Amino acid sequence: MRISGENLIGATARRGGGEVFHALEAATGAVLEPSFASAAPADVARACALAAEAFDTYRETAPEARARFLEAVAEAILEIGDDLVARCVAESGLPRGRIEGERGRTVGQLRLFAAVVRDGGFLEARIDPAQPGRAPLPRPDLRLRQVAVGPVAVFGASNFPLAFSVAGGDTASALAAGCPVVAKAHPAHPGTSELVGRAVQRAVAACGLPEGVFSLLLDAGHAVGQALVADPRIAAVGFTGSRRGGTALMQAAAGRPAPIPVYAEMSSINPVVLLPAALSARGEAIGRAFVASMTLGSGQFCTNPGLVLAVAGPGLDGFLAAAAAALEEVQAATMLTPGIHRAYCAGVAALEGNPAVQVVGRGRAGGEHQGRAALFATDAEAFLADPALAEEVFGAASLVVRCPDLAGVRAVLEGLEGQLTAALHLDEADHAAARSLMPVLERRVGRILVNGFGTGVEVGHAMVHGGPYPATSDGRSTSVGSLAIQRFLRPVSYQDLPPALLPEALRDENPLGLRRRVDGRLVAPGA
Amino acid sequence: MRISGENLIGATARRGGGEVFHALEAATGAVLEPSFASAAPADVARACALAAEAFDTYRETAPEARARFLEAVAEAILEIGDDLVARCVAESGLPRGRIEGERGRTVGQLRLFAAVVRDGGFLEARIDPAQPGRAPLPRPDLRLRQVAVGPVAVFGASNFPLAFSVAGGDTASALAAGCPVVAKAHPAHPGTSELVGRAVQRAVAACGLPEGVFSLLLDAGHAVGQALVADPRIAAVGFTGSRRGGTALMQAAAGRPAPIPVYAEMSSINPVVLLPAALSARGEAIGRAFVASMTLGSGQFCTNPGLVLAVAGPGLDGFLAAAAAALEEVQAATMLTPGIHRAYCAGVAALEGNPAVQVVGRGRAGGEHQGRAALFATDAEAFLADPALAEEVFGAASLVVRCPDLAGVRAVLEGLEGQLTAALHLDEADHAAARSLMPVLERRVGRILVNGFGTGVEVGHAMVHGGPYPATSDGRSTSVGSLAIQRFLRPVSYQDLPPALLPEALRDENPLGLRRRVDGRLVAPGA
Repeated sequence: MRISGENLIGATARRGGGEVFHALEAATGAVLEPSFASAAPADVARACALAAEAFDTYRETAPEARARFLEAVAEAILEIGDDLVARCVAESGLPRGRIEGERGRTVGQLRLFAAVVRDGGFLEARIDPAQPGRAPLPRPDLRLRQVAVGPVAVFGASNFPLAFSVAGGDTASALAAGCPVVAKAHPAHPGTSELVGRAVQRAVAACGLPEGVFSLLLDAGHAVGQALVADPRIAAVGFTGSRRGGTALMQAAAGRPAPIPVYAEMSSINPVVLLPAALSARGEAIGRAFVASMTLGSGQFCTNPGLVLAVAGPGLDGFLAAAAAALEEVQAATMLTPGIHRAYCAGVAALEGNPAVQVVGRGRAGGEHQGRAALFATDAEAFLADPALAEEVFGAASLVVRCPDLAGVRAVLEGLEGQLTAALHLDEADHAAARSLMPVLERRVGRILVNGFGTGVEVGHAMVHGGPYPATSDGRSTSVGSLAIQRFLRPVSYQDLPPALLPEALRDENPLGLRRRVDGRLVAPGA
Repeated sequence: MRISGENLIGATARRGGGEVFHALEAATGAVLEPSFASAAPADVARACALAAEAFDTYRETAPEARARFLEAVAEAILEIGDDLVARCVAESGLPRGRIEGERGRTVGQLRLFAAVVRDGGFLEARIDPAQPGRAPLPRPDLRLRQVAVGPVAVFGASNFPLAFSVAGGDTASALAAGCPVVAKAHPAHPGTSELVGRAVQRAVAACGLPEGVFSLLLDAGHAVGQALVADPRIAAVGFTGSRRGGTALMQAAAGRPAPIPVYAEMSSINPVVLLPAALSARGEAIGRAFVASMTLGSGQFCTNPGLVLAVAGPGLDGFLAAAAAALEEVQAATMLTPGIHRAYCAGVAALEGNPAVQVVGRGRAGGEHQGRAALFATDAEAFLADPALAEEVFGAASLVVRCPDLAGVRAVLEGLEGQLTAALHLDEADHAAARSLMPVLERRVGRILVNGFGTGVEVGHAMVHGGPYPATSDGRSTSVGSLAIQRFLRPVSYQDLPPALLPEALRDENPLGLRRRVDGRLVAPGA
């Protein structure tokens, strides 16, 4: 399938008037054709105007129509076939199997949200019937539903070129909520973005939806993204990326004449706590499993385990020895972009140069664009004294903190910023210790897991991929799983409306077959 | 009951180290005893430290215990008896009947949230059971619940000294969610605030809860509020007041090292649209009802109808004539504070001096601290040309905009900022016109009502008291009604936890008897 290098504005494709750039083959740094042209300010404005125009129609599509549209997007992505996988592998340097899996995840997310739309629970339909005879004042008829917030700006992530990008989780949840999307392609994979964007465009047309439901903008730098967030027609922002990028968008959104919510997933070191009984019984096995997790995808996961906490002793020594041995077998792997590779090398060098930090082990050295895994250790006192040690090194690097006792583990956890995940490795004899740490973890993270690592992020109903600042800009929500639809909704109440003017979700005859809260009690359809 | 002028810090009462101030009798401007001393920075820090200390215990109280605590607060407020009503009347200038009604509303809110806590639906309990045999990868066991965000700072409002103040809606919903509250008294009614604060303090003690669950701080100015929002232990902010005050808190919260959500309800002119058939059939009756609504409580409601839109013609003339006649009978009424009275007089004077604005009618003149109602008119062209005409004049003033046609009504609505409410007055012949305006209203407001006015804000499950900026800082929520509990919650996911470590809400045996979403489908307890 041809890649043109154009911006996709509604139903059209047009060469942008801004800076021209190329994708690079991640493995070699070679320039990939064609060239891409960044959007000009007029392109941004046109995409936002079309989105605003489409909004009232799109947000009132029937649940079945909207669900079918999400499924049509999934189908259209699959129909691209191997061209998508090949281009995505070239641009990201990620292995084919991973990209195929990620495509399945992307399609699965769209289908999950189709099911969420059909279920209708997200509408939060509520009815408080009138009580005309109530004293001293009659009670009016009050009904409530959630409505879409408005057009959403979605920023593609570098590390998931499909699942957290043009038609990734943010786009799927925003479209499911009834919000048009203006996506900003990540400049590291513009060809992948265009292929997916054209698939969404085809689905919009095939479903007979207004063209403004989706646009895709290109940007070599940051100007298009800033203009997009500043546009008064944009009502919310979804972003996955660096802390610097996310906080810049937060500031831009807060500085608008009418501030808007930003859902930025930014930075997390995902602490792993090894509790004494587990460490003593199976420290070496945990060490090997840990290395497999920290080096997966060259460590380029938001949920990569960047910090390990344990009480010093023979169990931890066994863990470290096994991890070091496992690391020696780990091949260096291509990183997503030369910039990410450079940042990774700088982060590793800083740890190597820190006198309070020891090198536990390194993976094998590799080529020019490949990240070499690295495991470091320090002690709790040094960690607490140096905030730089708690900063994320994006890639396959991790730091083990030797703690004097469980109180030391707790003190390190209490000192951490917000995180996406925390993992506890424990046996039954560790339950009391684990229980004492649970409140700290619940205050700090979005997902607590036991005897595993956070790198697998299941797409389901009970997933939280989020967490307190700076893991995300807004810990009240998740970017993965069905709960993500709540990001792009706001409640509206209808008082004493004649039946003919009520939205379908709130009519007495319940044409959408919704479960609704009547006077506060959930009532099944037909009941 | 004695009023001491002290700050209530946890279980203690202590004289603040900051600026000393007095309450004034609203009707006379006379100084009321005793003096109040603003909190010193150490008092703020102490209240926040106690709240943080109490948090882990309080947020894990059993639903029944937490519900009983909310009911105990309600009881303790009623037990103050007439001392509370008398002091509140003196400080606010509001009539006794209104204050008694507001007390009932306050107590009713606390009891509503007790029911919400017992219902447990707010926990959003979800279980995606493990699928160990799933290919290519087994699915983990994932469970989700909402947890409290942390200690909440609540700012009392001037215009509802009970229902939106120390133990008002924000406090009730935060406590229901499991968040300790540090309240900041409004300086216009510090005596009322202390009486209510001591009632909450007594309920905390009677229920055996940690003292840090509630504190009350006094402040003559803004320093205590700023320090409170800046304190790293505060996790969210509830505020009802001016746009200037709300945006200052938004900026303070966004500028923290770790930004936090601010729920500020700020400014709204609550458009009222009079549609042609209704206006023609009963314009005069609507005019009389409108004047009753706009002058209620001296117009000091967030939902006061400050803007009326209609197509020019005989129907509107009849409305205006009836409104002007009704206004002549309206007595001036004491306003909440001399400052609010001054701002009201300045707002009215600015409208009077605007060459594009005509005076439709005035209420009766009154005493030094009393607001005299005022109704103005202009045309759509002038209104659209002068943004100052869309600014809220807090008090019993309203502006009628004569529109050339329905398109003109729509254009004015499209130009408005976010609002709390919009009211449509309509007959059956107006349905098509109303339907065409619904999308505009849904994008602009939190509550749409028909053939009424927004001044009554029902406390229930289907109420939205909120709206897009600048009606509130965050249109994704409500400050009134049971949905308000969602402001102070965030989701946490638990992966592969041993049953012994799971929170009760998520255990297989469902000890809390919750309705839960299992694999996305709602399942009743016992099913």
